[in-house]
Amino acid sequence: MSRTFTLLAGCRDRVGIVAHVSGFIAGHKGWITEASYHTDPVSHWFFMRHVIMADSLPMDIDTFRAQFGEYAKSMDIDWQISDSAAPKRVVIFVSKEEHCLAELLYRWRSKDMQFDIAGVISNHNDMRSYVEFHGLPYHYIPVDKQNKITAFSEIENVLAACQADTIVLARYMQILPPALCTKYHGRIINIHHSFLPSFAGAKPYHQAYERGVKLIGATSHYVTEELDAGPIIEQDVIRVSHDTDIPSMVRLGKDVEKLVLARAVRYHLEDRVLVHGNKTVVFA
Amino acid sequence: MSRTFTLLAGCRDRVGIVAHVSGFIAGHKGWITEASYHTDPVSHWFFMRHVIMADSLPMDIDTFRAQFGEYAKSMDIDWQISDSAAPKRVVIFVSKEEHCLAELLYRWRSKDMQFDIAGVISNHNDMRSYVEFHGLPYHYIPVDKQNKITAFSEIENVLAACQADTIVLARYMQILPPALCTKYHGRIINIHHSFLPSFAGAKPYHQAYERGVKLIGATSHYVTEELDAGPIIEQDVIRVSHDTDIPSMVRLGKDVEKLVLARAVRYHLEDRVLVHGNKTVVFA
Amino acid sequence: MSRTFTLLAGCRDRVGIVAHVSGFIAGHKGWITEASYHTDPVSHWFFMRHVIMADSLPMDIDTFRAQFGEYAKSMDIDWQISDSAAPKRVVIFVSKEEHCLAELLYRWRSKDMQFDIAGVISNHNDMRSYVEFHGLPYHYIPVDKQNKITAFSEIENVLAACQADTIVLARYMQILPPALCTKYHGRIINIHHSFLPSFAGAKPYHQAYERGVKLIGATSHYVTEELDAGPIIEQDVIRVSHDTDIPSMVRLGKDVEKLVLARAVRYHLEDRVLVHGNKTVVFA
Amino acid sequence: MSRTFTLLAGCRDRVGIVAHVSGFIAGHKGWITEASYHTDPVSHWFFMRHVIMADSLPMDIDTFRAQFGEYAKSMDIDWQISDSAAPKRVVIFVSKEEHCLAELLYRWRSKDMQFDIAGVISNHNDMRSYVEFHGLPYHYIPVDKQNKITAFSEIENVLAACQADTIVLARYMQILPPALCTKYHGRIINIHHSFLPSFAGAKPYHQAYERGVKLIGATSHYVTEELDAGPIIEQDVIRVSHDTDIPSMVRLGKDVEKLVLARAVRYHLEDRVLVHGNKTVVFA
Repeated sequence: MSRTFTLLAGCRDRVGIVAHVSGFIAGHKGWITEASYHTDPVSHWFFMRHVIMADSLPMDIDTFRAQFGEYAKSMDIDWQISDSAAPKRVVIFVSKEEHCLAELLYRWRSKDMQFDIAGVISNHNDMRSYVEFHGLPYHYIPVDKQNKITAFSEIENVLAACQADTIVLARYMQILPPALCTKYHGRIINIHHSFLPSFAGAKPYHQAYERGVKLIGATSHYVTEELDAGPIIEQDVIRVSHDTDIPSMVRLGKDVEKLVLARAVRYHLEDRVLVHGNKTVVFA
Repeated sequence: MSRTFTLLAGCRDRVGIVAHVSGFIAGHKGWITEASYHTDPVSHWFFMRHVIMADSLPMDIDTFRAQFGEYAKSMDIDWQISDSAAPKRVVIFVSKEEHCLAELLYRWRSKDMQFDIAGVISNHNDMRSYVEFHGLPYHYIPVDKQNKITAFSEIENVLAACQADTIVLARYMQILPPALCTKYHGRIINIHHSFLPSFAGAKPYHQAYERGVKLIGATSHYVTEELDAGPIIEQDVIRVSHDTDIPSMVRLGKDVEKLVLARAVRYHLEDRVLVHGNKTVVFA
Repeated sequence: MSRTFTLLAGCRDRVGIVAHVSGFIAGHKGWITEASYHTDPVSHWFFMRHVIMADSLPMDIDTFRAQFGEYAKSMDIDWQISDSAAPKRVVIFVSKEEHCLAELLYRWRSKDMQFDIAGVISNHNDMRSYVEFHGLPYHYIPVDKQNKITAFSEIENVLAACQADTIVLARYMQILPPALCTKYHGRIINIHHSFLPSFAGAKPYHQAYERGVKLIGATSHYVTEELDAGPIIEQDVIRVSHDTDIPSMVRLGKDVEKLVLARAVRYHLEDRVLVHGNKTVVFA
Repeated sequence: MSRTFTLLAGCRDRVGIVAHVSGFIAGHKGWITEASYHTDPVSHWFFMRHVIMADSLPMDIDTFRAQFGEYAKSMDIDWQISDSAAPKRVVIFVSKEEHCLAELLYRWRSKDMQFDIAGVISNHNDMRSYVEFHGLPYHYIPVDKQNKITAFSEIENVLAACQADTIVLARYMQILPPALCTKYHGRIINIHHSFLPSFAGAKPYHQAYERGVKLIGATSHYVTEELDAGPIIEQDVIRVSHDTDIPSMVRLGKDVEKLVLARAVRYHLEDRVLVHGNKTVVFA
């Protein structure tokens, strides 16, 4: 794949904004391969995503970044540019269930998605050999009620040491401390095994079984301080019936969970997600 | 279609129950064209549905009913038999939105589903000419905060006069009084425009928009005294995005609502639904 | 809904084309509410759709059309502009099956979709009373092997007289003559009751049953001279099993057919479809 | 999970057959936990599946098998019994694409599905280290136009040596010789990356792209001598648009392929599939 720059931007909606921004890019000879726009009808905030061929620009990314920065300032535009040549560094958190981890590792080793895995953190040792087969560092950091503060301080050290920019909770089953949520705001992706907002919290399949729903689902969202309440990135469902007992729900649900998480992570890695209040714009 | 009898039954699970009941039917020369079984793993209650060709039985339905009744009593089996030659009598309640009503009328006039429509009750006059084109009685019974008791007493009279055995709330938008819910227990079908238990109550699409979900849905359930909390018969969802504003959700949701309601009504009409506590067994 | 102009355009892909066209619109003070772009990776053809608020332009549509026309000529751009105040005139062709017709009539009378129905043409009289209830003209034009030429000549006269710009074959079950396909090229929408290219031609559900597929589908496409081979606009499927006999396939399939056709017609009415060779770009 | 016996049977349909067979099982004190029935409306063949709790039978499986065998002979019933304590022995064939293999290995090592993997056969060495990490034998048997006969003779030896009873072609990309298809008739499961019967043969995503379909799919089927034409076990689809180029189809399709294959293999492993002519009955 050719090297690309992805420009995400947002500003107050106004007449001519598409022409203005795409004009700036064209004025620098940038070849746009993808362009997506959205206006929020309540806040009148305008969202843009442009993918630009790197070699169409007769300058390096830092020069373009500096020039776009000046332009954006004059236009009151929030923005960020990422470079496909600098993939994101992800740390995966896992507990004992392997399906989400296995899915992400498959996509990494098969190059189905472009990212670096800086390491795996777990409160159990079960996944060690599988992770280490991939040549990836495995950090066993047990968490319990007594050691929570020490454990998460160790986790923060690991995150800092491996320069993580994205955290994926691949069925981690532990609640992150608020400070960590704040520090990596908009960069921690969780998978919850229900169709939120139904069945937040513990044992969602048990809750679903009790209620007698005819579809079960999974939700991938950015983590905020409030449990299972952050901006939703992706959701999906699968049909169940009176015949589907709880173990079957758990089994069927895994297929949905792993695909929903993988899609959400892909959107994040490809800078397709903009957070707006407690909602997302996903230029899928 | 040939005339059939549908036997729904439930009893405590035990070894040999399938053999015993199907043996009784075979002993009366009954030809079973559909047989479905389910055991609830928590309560150990056993559910059965048998469809029997009417002309395979060398006796009329009343004789069979009497003989099965004695047998069932001896076996401690709850049961009911319905006759395809005696379709259910349905009263449809509607407000101003026509999509669910139009779907049910289409299925009735095209004989896609087998039922009699005993009448349509509405708190508005908007649907009168469309309903009357079908040669069906339209009862305009306005409901407001002041006249609620009188209005529902008039509704009960209409229901009694037209010998309704099933009520379908096709986006009726009024809460039925508890006494009516009790009287027609297990025979009032509602469509709620959300994927319950998310977004019960008023304006579910507004709630869904606020939460930023990526799928919206509809739920058809039996009405109980508690609002939007009765046994779920059928549910489905449709994908939305950041681009889907509330009017678009309302529009897209209608396609799901009408199909979910139609499927639930079909299951009920064909005696495919058994209620068990607050859940359903649906032999779809 | 506010009045809007929809501009569809296509040209050879080049750097700066988005900036250039959106710059032209902005230069005329046009407020773009929707903007969609696509480049075909094989032919390098660039497709655009812009929706412009009518009252943002300080000129009428004819003046804008003239000015854009000159600009487009200078830029070698193919284009067309439509006005939401001038809805398309549709003639619906139907045979004996009513589900697709009923769906379209529902969407028309409930204003779910914006279009005029110039009339209904049928080779049977079955749907007459239902259509006439809507106050719409019903043209009974029987077609058989002997009268095909006369019949279609009469059909062409009706189409001309009622100034149809779009034809929808709502399960018409007759093959249109090549001349008619050519005359209304890109403006005749058919629904075929299979997931094309599987099971083209007659009795697709019988073919599907024979092959033992586990999903059945429907396809809406523009009609070309070659049967069931035109550019596909929309498709969808529904699950079946060994238990689904042919009458059940026919019944289940209707739910898919009517929704797929309705979506395809909506895309066409809202100028969301561009035909490119034998494929479509659908800015849904 | 408790040990169970699964009894698959088929015979000419007749009155009382359910009562008779379930009566035989009940007469041996067998506790039926799942019972599924189907009559083919064309051939009037009757299909049954019963799952029986092993410890409810006061005899071992061989005694039960012998007694059921005599009974079945007297009743003209075709049958087979499998024992959950004797899981099937599977050999997986793979080429260079790893997604289907990885999915099956995940389900095996996580015990999501119950089966033994007797080995992996490949015409490439790419997957060796991943397979060997699982402690499974990897047989590298290159196939080309010249050595086809020798290669498949070697493959047959490996299959015999490891006592395979089921073969799964996890995107193997080679056509098996007719003799092998015959020898393992009804026990070779393939995944084809299209919604069959559309796009059989080579490069189905290219064919799908050319035709401009709006959904792409995958089909898992038993292999017969005729390419991609055997009895279909499971199918599913995923939505695409004009924006989905061929590499994206390949990528999106993998998610469908691996889940469709996994479901089909599960149905086979759990003896849920009966082949009837060129179709399957799947008691899912």
